[in-house]
Amino acid sequence: MENSVTEISKLGEFGLIDHLTKEFPLKNESSVLGVGDDAAVLDFGNDKEILVTTDLLLEGIHFDVRYVPLKHLGYKSAIVNFSDIYAMGGTPKQITVSIGVSSRFTVEHIEAIYSGLRTACEIYGVDLVGGDTSASVTGLVISITCIGECEKGKEIRRDGAKPTDVICVSGDLGAAYMGLQLLERENRVASGVGDDFQPDFAGREYILERQLKPEARRDIIEALRENGIQPTAMMDVSDGLSSELLHICKKSDVGCRVYEDRIPIDYQTACMAEELNMNLVTAAMNGGEDYELLFTVSLSDHEKVEKIPGVRMIGYVTEPSLGAAMVTRDGGEIPIQAQGWNAFNK
Amino acid sequence: MENSVTEISKLGEFGLIDHLTKEFPLKNESSVLGVGDDAAVLDFGNDKEILVTTDLLLEGIHFDVRYVPLKHLGYKSAIVNFSDIYAMGGTPKQITVSIGVSSRFTVEHIEAIYSGLRTACEIYGVDLVGGDTSASVTGLVISITCIGECEKGKEIRRDGAKPTDVICVSGDLGAAYMGLQLLERENRVASGVGDDFQPDFAGREYILERQLKPEARRDIIEALRENGIQPTAMMDVSDGLSSELLHICKKSDVGCRVYEDRIPIDYQTACMAEELNMNLVTAAMNGGEDYELLFTVSLSDHEKVEKIPGVRMIGYVTEPSLGAAMVTRDGGEIPIQAQGWNAFNK
Repeated sequence: MENSVTEISKLGEFGLIDHLTKEFPLKNESSVLGVGDDAAVLDFGNDKEILVTTDLLLEGIHFDVRYVPLKHLGYKSAIVNFSDIYAMGGTPKQITVSIGVSSRFTVEHIEAIYSGLRTACEIYGVDLVGGDTSASVTGLVISITCIGECEKGKEIRRDGAKPTDVICVSGDLGAAYMGLQLLERENRVASGVGDDFQPDFAGREYILERQLKPEARRDIIEALRENGIQPTAMMDVSDGLSSELLHICKKSDVGCRVYEDRIPIDYQTACMAEELNMNLVTAAMNGGEDYELLFTVSLSDHEKVEKIPGVRMIGYVTEPSLGAAMVTRDGGEIPIQAQGWNAFNK
Repeated sequence: MENSVTEISKLGEFGLIDHLTKEFPLKNESSVLGVGDDAAVLDFGNDKEILVTTDLLLEGIHFDVRYVPLKHLGYKSAIVNFSDIYAMGGTPKQITVSIGVSSRFTVEHIEAIYSGLRTACEIYGVDLVGGDTSASVTGLVISITCIGECEKGKEIRRDGAKPTDVICVSGDLGAAYMGLQLLERENRVASGVGDDFQPDFAGREYILERQLKPEARRDIIEALRENGIQPTAMMDVSDGLSSELLHICKKSDVGCRVYEDRIPIDYQTACMAEELNMNLVTAAMNGGEDYELLFTVSLSDHEKVEKIPGVRMIGYVTEPSLGAAMVTRDGGEIPIQAQGWNAFNK
């Protein structure tokens, strides 16, 4: 043990978390659900359950301050946590924010980050209740923990999908990824020319906004509640649809079929993919950072879910033996593989 | 605003947090207490309150992997959070752990960190319920959030100290700081000699353990409960006694007098200070990382608190106009100043 050496990339992010946390059985009565879902579920004996989720954002891995405005970075850092709470069917209520900053940052830089955090908190009705600010000798570090609530027993986990359930996704996919491609391209161009370079973002506002200023789908959670729909499984799309589908299949012990021609893709996403000569469906399936909601509902809720604007039914849940596959436009099947964003392979 | 530039060191860590969070008023009913204490207090409508605290530990600022074994680092990372929950009079119940690791770390390195976390969780009865593991292009980053519980309305804040209250501290002070001095000296020596250098730690085990493997004072919290003592204010000593006394004075709007000859100091701490030609009382007052509990009790609890082993009465609370001062052995008074650990000045 002491002498063995295993590269982290061999396990990958999810493999590593599984490996490290499998020896931590839950012992406290108040710990209802631990590692392995969008948020932990705690119960301190009242009629509400407490949801807890946390995200660590590191400069050079999760963001690049050369082309991400700090205010947007603050906003997005909060949103990705709110999204995890909504993905449990809950409502975010509080966040704690820890920031590590190197000496090249000034108070005004950190104010910009907090200004974005504040805007996100105001819009989503969340209180900032704690945190930590520290010097960093390395890069900018943002660690956020979000606490939310949901009705007892109503949390939507990843493990409840059943064969014949309908698979749904909100909004559209791949736009945030194409926005990132655009930003990276303009940054490469800018670094080769003078200071007066003006990147050309006209007609690409949507994909940029999806990358820089995503929203959490509170509206979808509210619409599901109003229509009396309790999804059988749900998670948010942060690593890419392929990766998330495989999580639900693994946790629920099911297979799935999703239809290529049902994957929701925006026009700007399609244009950008064509311009960059990238495969559009691959971008939509594996791009990540969409922060849309992927969920499954009973077949009997089919008609109710159809009425919710911005929700697309993209396939159905199968027996586990059938595996996870995408049905192509010509009727063929391609196995779904997690090509999702894995920072350890970068 | 956009064009002004303020160095972070001008505000310091606490000034920065105050500055950044003052525009975040609490709006949710469930947010009882926000930024500015050892932990946030939340109330989701049951007979227990939820406590939340978070700590961000950065390589090169909070620890040096050259002389901190990773297992101890994991243990200490958990303990510093448990300590914050105890310092509110609560019981830690869950933690989430986010870790960012660079490619020079292997799975076995991270296992060592988790092994320390697991030991701490087992000893203190805490569940690991979530987290995040990410690649880092910079240094090792550990971010932990701890959730605890306490009886409703029984949380011990920093703002309840009243003139004539007795000031108490658990254990002894300055040992962790002297342990760090020893480790740094041996590391300097080691880097100048061959690989077979063996540092000489004989007779200094206590100060090393205080630095590398501190404990949280659950025993003191239990003893206070058993003896029916509800402290009027409490916090843990992480940045140094001087800094913490000033926090309580500021939050409670009081002054204080502490007696130099009442400051608890271990023999090994004293020996090491002498060997390194450092001022012992300065080390004890400003060293930090003691994770002892500093608290105030009503004068009427004086006799009850006297019976608790490991608690020392070191002074009393005064009217705010008298300021915060240490009474020296010769009866003089020295104003207490926060020379506590401020990472932004490093």
